[in-house]
Amino acid sequence: MNPQNGYDVEDITVGMSAETAKTITDADIVLFAGVSTDVNAVHMDEEYGRTTQFGGRIAHGMLSASLLSAVLGNRLPGPGVVYMSQSLRFRAPVRIGDTVHAKVTVKEVIAEKCRVILDTMCTVGDKVVIDGEAMVMATSRRKREAAAR
Amino acid sequence: MNPQNGYDVEDITVGMSAETAKTITDADIVLFAGVSTDVNAVHMDEEYGRTTQFGGRIAHGMLSASLLSAVLGNRLPGPGVVYMSQSLRFRAPVRIGDTVHAKVTVKEVIAEKCRVILDTMCTVGDKVVIDGEAMVMATSRRKREAAAR
Repeated sequence: MNPQNGYDVEDITVGMSAETAKTITDADIVLFAGVSTDVNAVHMDEEYGRTTQFGGRIAHGMLSASLLSAVLGNRLPGPGVVYMSQSLRFRAPVRIGDTVHAKVTVKEVIAEKCRVILDTMCTVGDKVVIDGEAMVMATSRRKREAAAR
Repeated sequence: MNPQNGYDVEDITVGMSAETAKTITDADIVLFAGVSTDVNAVHMDEEYGRTTQFGGRIAHGMLSASLLSAVLGNRLPGPGVVYMSQSLRFRAPVRIGDTVHAKVTVKEVIAEKCRVILDTMCTVGDKVVIDGEAMVMATSRRKREAAAR
């Protein structure tokens, strides 16, 4: 672990995983609309939402995706991590009241470059709502010790 | 255009583009931390931020990325669009007070499937902070007219 309690690349092995969950509420959607400026009617207007294939308002896809960033930054690798890339496939809508579970699983560790590749997935119940892959740069105990010498 | 004033797939041609810009403030970061649950010290703790390679607090990468969702949902294709996928490379940090310009440019139109592929980019000044690609499903005038017959 690094001094911020995050995992160093030397601690990380293929198959390790971490997750978080959050119930998506109306307040989340309103606040996310404000910070993102994404005020698409399908997020803001229940009457319009009912006329769409979704049958009502849905949450912003990037709102659920941001939970993946939270797991990477808070849990695995955790503090000290630098986000390099993320791919996202939006596979199903998230509605107000849904609890989104965001899970990351280590797929590959490139120790010499401090890179970690993780499968990233958001689910609601049994349904996958987002899948994709993240690449992050983790801290390194070896590098920290070499710098301290 | 569709009844919500968004572009139908029949209106969209390669090279069309749209953009938005937003100045990232402390309030954005605090609110984004709340909705995402991403309270990584590099976003919340200026003293810790100063000890990192970034030299201070930085915004969540997904906060800037969410501006891309806003351009797609508000401007091009605009209302009626369905977000299918997004890839993101986080290339440089965004700091409080930076103005992020988010731009999308049509790269490919797959008319028969109503799919549009767009280059997506966020910049601060001359620096690219995020690049990647989005795929969306646009509305179709042809399908709407066929359904009305």
